[in-house]
Amino acid sequence: MLQVTDVAADAAACCTPLTREAIDADRAEDLARKLKALADPTRLRLVSIVAASEGEEACVCDLIEPVGLSQPTVSHHLRILMEAGFLSRSKRGTWAYYKLVPGALGQLSQLLDVTASRPVVE
Amino acid sequence: MLQVTDVAADAAACCTPLTREAIDADRAEDLARKLKALADPTRLRLVSIVAASEGEEACVCDLIEPVGLSQPTVSHHLRILMEAGFLSRSKRGTWAYYKLVPGALGQLSQLLDVTASRPVVE
Repeated sequence: MLQVTDVAADAAACCTPLTREAIDADRAEDLARKLKALADPTRLRLVSIVAASEGEEACVCDLIEPVGLSQPTVSHHLRILMEAGFLSRSKRGTWAYYKLVPGALGQLSQLLDVTASRPVVE
Repeated sequence: MLQVTDVAADAAACCTPLTREAIDADRAEDLARKLKALADPTRLRLVSIVAASEGEEACVCDLIEPVGLSQPTVSHHLRILMEAGFLSRSKRGTWAYYKLVPGALGQLSQLLDVTASRPVVE
């Protein structure tokens, strides 16, 4: 079974923005790994479709047609997104459902935030 | 001379977050290109050092030692960051200076923002 990266485990490295102080090599490695998982047009579209779906969850059967790729290719991209902690997966009946991991994109967004001009609402 | 991507030219594609509605293929390509430019530990550290410097600007002479790479390698990474619109470059005397392009990281951060829980301060 695929392992989902535990977002909570990354919390220690969170959340000083990239631009507030120079980041060290370890944090840069971790952040680069997450960005790399997202830095693909198909994966961005998959995340976007899941996030825009009701309950931020979508059946794999509804993800294949919009991106116009084969099921194995779509599954490959979904696996990368899961391993980077952006999506989680559950099986119900015949189909697998992919759900946005709460906070994962928001945390990445905060790390990139340069201006800190937006007050964080807790 | 290197061309800096005009951030303003991207404004049309800005700023509905990735997660508000499913993004189309063109926006996904553009966003993936920007994320790919950042998705490297050395480039993240370079952006971070520049951003944390006074005036969000740093001499190339101050960027080489912290990342522990040769000047040609550092220049290669800086060029990728310029082409993606994150840094701009100016020459003063012997040295080149790299400056954070205002708004570039903030715009990317907003595009990734899933929760939209943070009100945008204009």
